[in-house]
Amino acid sequence: MKNKENDFVKEIPHKAENISEWYTSVILKGKLADYSPVRGCMVIRPYGYEIWENIQNYLNKKFRETGHKNGYFPMFIPQSFLTKEAEHVEGFAPQVALVTKGGGEDLTEPLVVRPTSESIICSMYAKWIKSYRDLPLKINQWCNVVRWEKTTRLFLRSMEFLWQEGHTVHRTAKEAEEHTERMLEVYREFAENFLALPVLTGRKTEGEKFAGADHTYTIEALMPDGQALQSGTSHNLGQHFAKAFDIKFLDDDNVEKYPYQTSFGVSTRIMGALIMMHGDDRGLAFPPKVAPTQIVIVPIFYGNKELVMDKAIELKKKLDEHFRVEIDDRDEYKPGWKFNEWEMKGVPMRIEIGPKDIEKNQITVSPRIGEGKIVLPLDNPVEKIDELLNDIQKRFFDRAKSYFDSHIFDASSVDDVLNHQKEGRKGFYKTLWCGDEACAEKFGDLTSTTPRCISKTEQGEGKCCCCGKEAHSYLYFARAY
Amino acid sequence: MKNKENDFVKEIPHKAENISEWYTSVILKGKLADYSPVRGCMVIRPYGYEIWENIQNYLNKKFRETGHKNGYFPMFIPQSFLTKEAEHVEGFAPQVALVTKGGGEDLTEPLVVRPTSESIICSMYAKWIKSYRDLPLKINQWCNVVRWEKTTRLFLRSMEFLWQEGHTVHRTAKEAEEHTERMLEVYREFAENFLALPVLTGRKTEGEKFAGADHTYTIEALMPDGQALQSGTSHNLGQHFAKAFDIKFLDDDNVEKYPYQTSFGVSTRIMGALIMMHGDDRGLAFPPKVAPTQIVIVPIFYGNKELVMDKAIELKKKLDEHFRVEIDDRDEYKPGWKFNEWEMKGVPMRIEIGPKDIEKNQITVSPRIGEGKIVLPLDNPVEKIDELLNDIQKRFFDRAKSYFDSHIFDASSVDDVLNHQKEGRKGFYKTLWCGDEACAEKFGDLTSTTPRCISKTEQGEGKCCCCGKEAHSYLYFARAY
Repeated sequence: MKNKENDFVKEIPHKAENISEWYTSVILKGKLADYSPVRGCMVIRPYGYEIWENIQNYLNKKFRETGHKNGYFPMFIPQSFLTKEAEHVEGFAPQVALVTKGGGEDLTEPLVVRPTSESIICSMYAKWIKSYRDLPLKINQWCNVVRWEKTTRLFLRSMEFLWQEGHTVHRTAKEAEEHTERMLEVYREFAENFLALPVLTGRKTEGEKFAGADHTYTIEALMPDGQALQSGTSHNLGQHFAKAFDIKFLDDDNVEKYPYQTSFGVSTRIMGALIMMHGDDRGLAFPPKVAPTQIVIVPIFYGNKELVMDKAIELKKKLDEHFRVEIDDRDEYKPGWKFNEWEMKGVPMRIEIGPKDIEKNQITVSPRIGEGKIVLPLDNPVEKIDELLNDIQKRFFDRAKSYFDSHIFDASSVDDVLNHQKEGRKGFYKTLWCGDEACAEKFGDLTSTTPRCISKTEQGEGKCCCCGKEAHSYLYFARAY
Repeated sequence: MKNKENDFVKEIPHKAENISEWYTSVILKGKLADYSPVRGCMVIRPYGYEIWENIQNYLNKKFRETGHKNGYFPMFIPQSFLTKEAEHVEGFAPQVALVTKGGGEDLTEPLVVRPTSESIICSMYAKWIKSYRDLPLKINQWCNVVRWEKTTRLFLRSMEFLWQEGHTVHRTAKEAEEHTERMLEVYREFAENFLALPVLTGRKTEGEKFAGADHTYTIEALMPDGQALQSGTSHNLGQHFAKAFDIKFLDDDNVEKYPYQTSFGVSTRIMGALIMMHGDDRGLAFPPKVAPTQIVIVPIFYGNKELVMDKAIELKKKLDEHFRVEIDDRDEYKPGWKFNEWEMKGVPMRIEIGPKDIEKNQITVSPRIGEGKIVLPLDNPVEKIDELLNDIQKRFFDRAKSYFDSHIFDASSVDDVLNHQKEGRKGFYKTLWCGDEACAEKFGDLTSTTPRCISKTEQGEGKCCCCGKEAHSYLYFARAY
């Protein structure tokens, strides 16, 4: 029987010393994902896919509440479609995979494997939308997309990835803008309450917006190395695509009009943020709401396997109705070994039950992060466990939020940022900005950062960080994944 | 206000006269799906996609119960992978779509867009499986696949389609065979109990099996025009792929062995069977278990909209916890128009509620198929409605089963089949067969049918339908989609 500390825990690099190696290591050892034989494509293993399924369930509920239905549009897009919206083609053409042969023959027009689906969806919307009564139209799809990437990393940047893309059509500009902002708020709530990831929310600068959008809103997480990670975007497409694809509706004043559109997406990339933010030197660590397994029961046999297993199975049955529970009854490993493994897998709560616990009619509960074993009564633990899981969820968020808040650094000049960087203060650099696109670009270049987002809620009074002219907007810069 | 019969109902071709036009018409009018700008690809609209989501939920539950977890493997497969298993490449190579350019450059090796994922999945299994402790391994994925088809039809045959593919690895041949048969049974139960589609179950002949399988089991539905529709397959892959991809495990006797594999799949094609089997001249008709909307409440205002809507909304709230319910409160259409539309959409149960009903504290319930309005008390109708929906589900199955049973025709020779066909008896032709592949093929050629499946449960005594030699197996022939 193996009793020494698991090899895989020892083998995990220290997160603080080499976050990049640590990241890959916990994903591979935790069996979340693996490299595939195709360069830049990843395999999502069952333990990782369960996270994606939990994300899908959560977002589907929010999408339904905001009036969306799911559908499915073809993965192949005629190459000519991409060129209909000028900015859109410029943004995506260099990144596409092209199907040029099918059924043994050369195609007359190559097919693009969707990098995003505005063009194919708009071609259908043009067919379906006739009257104001057909609006608003709100369809979401869950699918795979492909963007040819030179450098790839598990979850964070892969050639093929999974995502959801919502595509809506509205009668008025006001309604479209409201919807764009509403979906940004759905994403913020999802990131903070479900994934325990604090985010900045705001508008992208022109240079960073979605190719083809009027403007783009974003949620930006902050990773432990001080780099930002764009985690979800909500685009107000204005009438750009409606005009390019000739989507028109007859309004109730009998006038034919172009509608206003939005699109918004979250991808498997956000799982990279989840992993990187919450894990530690012992391995993965998942907030309870999104964790594939929320509770693992480790029975401590002490030569009394039958009795202990009876009670453990009874307990699991009680918990199964409310939580995602596993029981680890393997004979070939000792409890200490199992503790290490389940910690490495990031399960937020461990329950131990042994002969002595049974005598005292109790169980021992340990959270994955923070201190404190807690003893609970064996008989009716559901309510208390639910409370504890909520506490753990909050603990994950609070820990991340305290990091997040302490890594926003004020800067009123390029020198300020360079000084922060020199002294190891990596994170968001909060600046006042005049609104000139050239300033944002120049400031980013000189500080080796990119503009992440323009705050929608904060307003200031002062001088632009770059040109020194009058400025009212807060623009956050950071290095980014 | 529009009061005449809906145009779209009038426009539906008679099913008995032209099933092919009827089929396309009800799909397009019912907004289940639409043609896309890419030849052979289809758009699944929200009302159709809800059916797919219901199917996913049902099968996911069954897959979990049989020990599977979901994962995701890359869509792109190196072309060389497909050639590793000799029969597999022969079966699929002529049908593939090839990506030859990515990121603006020619690829050194073209990538196949998956037509099925055995090869890419086996390359990963070879990496993951080391010991008998890693077995059985059972992973399922929901994804899109592409097969280049010359002639396509909505749902029934499209170039890109959605499906699930399960891929399992077992220690012994016996266990793999048991699993192959278990998943066939999962499919049969799903088709009959969930979709109300009676099916034949059995083994495919060599000529009809999956390219690369040892043998294939199938569920075969029968369409109203007497043509069979293969609706799900479960393959025993033997050690073919294990040997081709070098998947080995160390058994507990310390000997390295090749494991045994299975794969099984159901696709959006089965939605074609669902639509074609149950619809009628009034449009679509869905069995309650799979119906996107199970109940529509049509309030009859009679100048008292407020009162009626209050009660209708109250009723919907009660029902929402148990069923998928819509309420049709549109002012611009009269009740008769709405009835027609919801019948066309195939909703299995309609509830009417008007001022007189409210006076009498009742509702009027109408099933989509069969006779009989039923009056129920308004106050506590959930239990009774649940019963009625179960009755309706059974009615759908019984109707289909009675058609199915009466369209299996005994045949002991080619002439028997030709005679059946001459006299308009189209369906399954049940024959005794000696087991010789050449007989199956010849018999099919001479009767313009294909061998659909060899019964696993029935055994006979007599002469082969083709060569006249001793025969014990029942082989069913039919024309097929």
